[in-house]
Order: sequence, then structure tokens, then C-alpha cells
Amino acid sequence: MEWSQILERLQNLLDSGHHSELRGALKMLSPVDIAQFLETLNPEKLLLAFRILPKDISADVFSYMSSETKQTLIESIGDNEIRSLINDMFLDDTVDFLEELPAGVVKRVLQNTDINTRNLINQFLQYPDNSAGSIMTIEYMEVHSGMTVGQTMEEIRRVGFDKETIYTIYVIDNERHLMGTVALRKLILCQEGIVIDTIMDTAIASVTTTDDQETVASLVRKYDLLAIPVVDKENRLVGIITADDIMDVIQEENTEDFEKMAALTPSEDSYLHTSPFKLAVNRIPWLLLLSIAAIFTGMIITNFEDLLQHVDIVLTACIPMLMDTGGNCGAQVSTLIIRGLALNELQPKDILKILWKEFRVALIVGGVLSVFTFLRVMFLNQAGMAVSLVVALSLYMTVIIAKAIGCCLPLLAKKIHLDPALMASPLITTIVDAASLTIYFSIATAILKV
Amino acid sequence: MEWSQILERLQNLLDSGHHSELRGALKMLSPVDIAQFLETLNPEKLLLAFRILPKDISADVFSYMSSETKQTLIESIGDNEIRSLINDMFLDDTVDFLEELPAGVVKRVLQNTDINTRNLINQFLQYPDNSAGSIMTIEYMEVHSGMTVGQTMEEIRRVGFDKETIYTIYVIDNERHLMGTVALRKLILCQEGIVIDTIMDTAIASVTTTDDQETVASLVRKYDLLAIPVVDKENRLVGIITADDIMDVIQEENTEDFEKMAALTPSEDSYLHTSPFKLAVNRIPWLLLLSIAAIFTGMIITNFEDLLQHVDIVLTACIPMLMDTGGNCGAQVSTLIIRGLALNELQPKDILKILWKEFRVALIVGGVLSVFTFLRVMFLNQAGMAVSLVVALSLYMTVIIAKAIGCCLPLLAKKIHLDPALMASPLITTIVDAASLTIYFSIATAILKV
Repeated sequence: MEWSQILERLQNLLDSGHHSELRGALKMLSPVDIAQFLETLNPEKLLLAFRILPKDISADVFSYMSSETKQTLIESIGDNEIRSLINDMFLDDTVDFLEELPAGVVKRVLQNTDINTRNLINQFLQYPDNSAGSIMTIEYMEVHSGMTVGQTMEEIRRVGFDKETIYTIYVIDNERHLMGTVALRKLILCQEGIVIDTIMDTAIASVTTTDDQETVASLVRKYDLLAIPVVDKENRLVGIITADDIMDVIQEENTEDFEKMAALTPSEDSYLHTSPFKLAVNRIPWLLLLSIAAIFTGMIITNFEDLLQHVDIVLTACIPMLMDTGGNCGAQVSTLIIRGLALNELQPKDILKILWKEFRVALIVGGVLSVFTFLRVMFLNQAGMAVSLVVALSLYMTVIIAKAIGCCLPLLAKKIHLDPALMASPLITTIVDAASLTIYFSIATAILKV
Repeated sequence: MEWSQILERLQNLLDSGHHSELRGALKMLSPVDIAQFLETLNPEKLLLAFRILPKDISADVFSYMSSETKQTLIESIGDNEIRSLINDMFLDDTVDFLEELPAGVVKRVLQNTDINTRNLINQFLQYPDNSAGSIMTIEYMEVHSGMTVGQTMEEIRRVGFDKETIYTIYVIDNERHLMGTVALRKLILCQEGIVIDTIMDTAIASVTTTDDQETVASLVRKYDLLAIPVVDKENRLVGIITADDIMDVIQEENTEDFEKMAALTPSEDSYLHTSPFKLAVNRIPWLLLLSIAAIFTGMIITNFEDLLQHVDIVLTACIPMLMDTGGNCGAQVSTLIIRGLALNELQPKDILKILWKEFRVALIVGGVLSVFTFLRVMFLNQAGMAVSLVVALSLYMTVIIAKAIGCCLPLLAKKIHLDPALMASPLITTIVDAASLTIYFSIATAILKV
């Protein structure tokens, strides 16, 4: 059945008041899909449908809703309902959700949680944005060093139900230091009497609460982990981060890079829910900065006023082609380098290797483009040998310079601990513009002897 | 201990011939790290170190090596070693590795696999590139409908060791149709006598062998899955794709988008291992196409020869600023739209909503930029009221047009099933260039009355 058909049937059941049938139908869907259905309803119907949900999945469904819908719902349900909802939710989901609410609503939610949960939530809210601490969960499965496989399995059966994952079990000592991990698959395939210390994996990757989520994601990806443990400064286990959250982190970090590379101030808000004013504020700073930088390009042109006003107009007509090609060449390399750095495939120390490679690439690319351009200017624009030569030669030099700038700037940024993604197309284009125009006018002056 | 220190110690143990000590040291590391160590060795030492590895992890270590190192190793080991290596590897890893080898080496490897594996490998190699079939694994845990929890656990203990994951168990009927899934955590918390059909999850997301890996990734991310089942056209279970492979898919797809958005032909080869010639070939087509497109921009300038050669040089000097700002404004929007489409947050049907939002953003952004530019041209370049007004007005119009082009093109591309990522900065810049110059010269002609 198509999703639109499913939506329609659910809608009909809701509208016609067949509440127990609706509950049955919802039981056939995953919490993600139910959340998607609830998103389509008006506040009144939303509240009704949410109350119809089977009790054991309502917290899960709630976690998957958009922050706007969560807020609408929280504002319309009673204190008792809030209390049981927060009780049933995983702590990391609660924290995520509170981070997106206005202060007044947060206060009301916190008043309806018990003192322990409230303290935990407040502690989580203090971790820096995008740190391992801010995205970890505390619902993990831990056992003490010295326990047997049988005792561990018993413990899992006792408390496993409330854990976010039981597939990796964390072994700690009496001071809560992380000793090792055991995969559930290993436990199941082992004899009951064996002490877990003898089968646990001690070569484990872990992160600390203040590590950046980007570091966390690259470790999880490198070691193909289902979850990674988070420890505090004294190496005591305080939480874990699971693979499903890491996937969201990876997409978030990629979005941030895409935005930075397009001269945008990164923002986590969804496009359709951001006001035009906020969008404009995210865009203006870089545009202003780049337009100030373009003053220099203007100055170069002004300096060569005589040249431009007394020689063939073709010389002026080729400026956009030269600038665009230079910008594109620079953007191609800088993108490859920025991406290579982000995926840890390149290092600043590779700079000479990269420059040498790019020089050879530029010789080929520049050669092809300038032969093509020479023929075009000569025969299509009928500009004469000298002018065609000026344009073609300038293009060749521009390609070489653009490739060099495009690979050096991101590597340099990385070296001085700036984000390489800032050294992308917009900035590179502006810098290459100035370089290419200077080359162009110098070659023109030399060859055309104006 | 620092990674460089670890490397040095391993190197010393290898050089001094302490082979059993080296084996002990390697046992302390994860297969990923061992592979990283092996990458640093010359072919002779590599072979030696690989043979020292504990037998049970050598296939795993092999899977994590680069394709160059894999090839070096395969070319130096004997047929028996190849046979046991392929036997111990997961089929999907074998296929990945064969896809990167020269035909001669592939033939030798295939000759050393049994007939069943060879048939399976050949079948895998026929799945289209980047399809679900090409990245799935067949080592999953399946049980038949009607079995009890106890029988299922027994089956897991019997064959689970060779499976890539046992955390999701797939329930099939006698025709191998996928009926549902059971999470291992649910099995462990249930009574032994319960029939799995009563506890299995039937609202399951699945993909078919020919689905694109991008579809697979977005489903796994949406439903927070550890693995997703792959079925053939008759809905029979043929494989699964695990979350760790999905993370690599997400990064691959992002890299592809980054490359397309920078006018590069996407390539899966690592930068440092790609020849300059190959790199040039990936870059030339788009550069040529864009430089042909720039001919139009040149024609526009040629048409306004009189204007440019008889009015203030400031008019020419402002061309780069106008072109760059237009390009940057267009790139900002198109990036947001392309990203929104990739993450399924935007749809082509949202076009009117987006255009209206961008129009309001353009009013603000264009306003700020043109006031700034008016003052700059008037006072810094001392160009007179009329020329300053021409530049500022043109900039305002350019910003509005650039935002409109930047949001329409990716949405249009999506609508006609082209990849929106192609409608990024380079192409948008070229189109906006032509638009902004036309606006510029028209306004100049009108106001300056040349």
C-alpha cells in the first residue's frame, strides 16, 4: 500500500471516531511512520491521536516528531502525561528535545521530572554544543569485572529492557573505570561459567565528554562500531553513543561543510522553518566580506584603463571567461582537498606531493583549454593573432595559479587550525580573480606593447 | 601510547625477528590498526608480517587494507593461502576487493575458490554499481516461521559465529519470503517456548537488489536500523546491509555531491593514488562546457562596446564585483536547496514557498549590499551620483535574479530526474553572469543615456 493511502485510511479512522480500530492500525506501523502521520494533523486531532497511541510506544513516537509538533503537544497535555512521557523516554532524546524548546516550556517539563532525572538533564544541558557529552546516552549495559558469562546474561535479562542497546556490554571496575567491552554475540556463543574478563576486548576506542562529535563519528566509522563508550577525565564510564545517532552526526557535519563552502553561516534549523530575516543574516557577512575583497579586482582594472579603452573590446569581453575558468579550476582542487582533509585521507604534510600533482594536472587542463580558447578567439571573434595569444597564454597561467591557490589555502587553513571548508569556491574565486586579471593585463601590456 | 610509538615498536619487533613477540603485540590491536601498520611496510616485510598474524584475524585484517596493499599481498602469497583467506572472508568484502583488482589477479583468486562461492561471487559482480545487491552481505541469520524462541537461540548458537550480525534475525517462510524480523534483545528477554511469529516485527523496511544505495542509506537513517534486509523481485530474502557499511555509503554519496557541485566528474579513487592524467580527465569536460557558456557573457560585453569605452572606467571596474556577488548569492541558495533535496527535507512541489521566501531574503540581502556599494562607489571611487546609482541598482537586481535562479534550477533538475547537485555554483555562476551583465548594461544605458 502507498504511504498516501495509509495516511488517508488513518485519517478516516480518526475522523469517524473509530478509536480502537485506529489504535489497531497504528500498531501495524513503526514509530517513525506514526510520528510522520501525527505531523500532518492539526493541534486538536494531534492530541486526540497521541492519546489513542498504545502506552508502550508513545514515548518512542514522541522522540521522532519535529520540535514544533513536540512543543504543540507538550503545551496541550497535562502534568501527569508529561511526567509519564519523560519517564518513558531515553535521557538523550529528552535532552535533545529540551534544547529546542522555549525556556518557559522547559521549566514546566523539568518541574514534572523527579529530582534525579532533573539533575541529570541539567548536567547534560551543560555539555558544549556538538560535544560527545551532549549526544551520549546513559542507558547502556554495564557489568562489573569478575562476573561470569552466566551472571552477565542474568543481569542483561534483569535490566536490559531499559537500555538503548544491549549488544555491547561494558565491563567496569569498582571505581567505574572502563576495563573492556564484550559483544553480546560472544556472550551467547560462550560457556556460562567463563569469567568475562577473559573474553572481553581491551583494545577499545573511547572518547571523552568534551570531544567533538566529528571525532566521535570518524572513530565509529574507522572501527565499524555499533556504539562507542564515553568516559570522563578520570577514564570513568559515563555514557555511550550509538551508531544511529552517529549517522545523524555524519549528515549534520556534511551539511555544515556544504554550507561553509557556499559562504553561508552554518545553521541547524530546517530551511522551510527559518525566517527570511534569519536566512539573510546567515548570508550577508560573507557576501559583504567578499564584495570588499572585490574592490581590489576593481582597482586592478582601473589601473589598466588605457589598455582596455584603446585596444580591441575582445580583451574586455574575455574577462568573464577568464575569471570564471580560474574560479572553477580553483574550486575543483579546493573541494578535493577539503574533502580529503575531512575524511582524513590527506594531511597538511602532503602539500609538496599535492602541489606537484596539481602542477602536472594544470599543464594538461590548461593546455586543452587554452588551445580551444586560442582557436575560438582567433576564428570566432576574429581578434587577430596577438590578442588571441594574449588570451590563451593568460588562461594557461591562470589555470596553473588557480590550482596552486586552490590546494594551498585549505592545507594552510588546516595547519593553523582553521576550518579548511572556509577556503572554498567563494573565497578562492575572489583571490583567483585578482591573480588572473593581473596576469592578463601584464601579458597584454607585454605582447601588445600598449 | 601514541600511535607513532606503537608503530615504532611493532617495526622494531619485526626487524629484529622476534616473531612470536610480534604476534603477541598484534593481538593487542584491533584489525583496523593492524591493517594500518601493514600499510607502512615494504612488500617483503608486509608478507612476513601478514604470515605472522593469528590465523583467526588475518581475513579481517585483510579486509581493512587498501586495494593496492591487497593486490601486492595476493600477488606474493601461494594458492593455498588465497584459498583459506577467501574462505575466512565475508562474501561482501571479497566482492568489494575483487572489484578493485586487475582481471588477471581476479582470475587467479576465483580459481582458488570452491564452485559455490565462485558462482555467488559472479552473481554479485553482476549487480549494478552502487546498487543494494552490490553492497549486501549474505551472511545473515535466518530462521523459519513457526520456530520457538528456544529453537531460534539454539540455531543462533549453532551457525551464528559465521554471520556478519546476529542482532537482527530474519524470519522466512518455506518459499524464503521475508515474513518479519526479531531483535536479539527481544529473544533474550522472552520465554523459550514462545513461537517467534508472535513476537516478530512485521512493519519492516526492506529494499530490492537493484535499489540505489542512496535509497538504502536514507531508509536506514530514517528508521534507525542496525541492518536492512534485501529481497529479490519475488520478495525472497537474499541478503542484508549492515549499518557500518551504510556509514561508508553516506560518506561516499556526500563526496559524490561535493565533487559534482564543484564541476568534477565523481571518482571513487583516492586523490593521492590517482594519476594527474586521470584527474585532468575528470575536470576538463565541465571546464570546457562552462568556458563555452562564457562566450555568451563575452558577446554581451562586446555588444555594449560603446558604453564601456566612453563612460567612466568604474563601470568596467565593477564588473568582477557584480559577477562574483551574483555568483555567490546564487551558490548560497542552490547549496541549501541541493542539500535539502538530498536529505528529503525539500520537494520540487515546495517551489512557490521557496521562491517567496528567497524573494524576501533577496530584498534584505540586496538592500544591505547595494547601500554599502553605493556609498563605496560614490565616495571611494568618486564616481558621481549617476554611475553609483547604476552600480547599486544593478547589484540589487542581480541579487534578486541570482536567488531566483539558484533556487529554481536544482528544483527543476530534481523534477526532470537529473541530479540537483549538477545545478551548483559553477553552472549557476555562469548563468547569473550573463543575467547580471545584461541587467547592468541595460540600467547603465537607461540612466546614463549613452
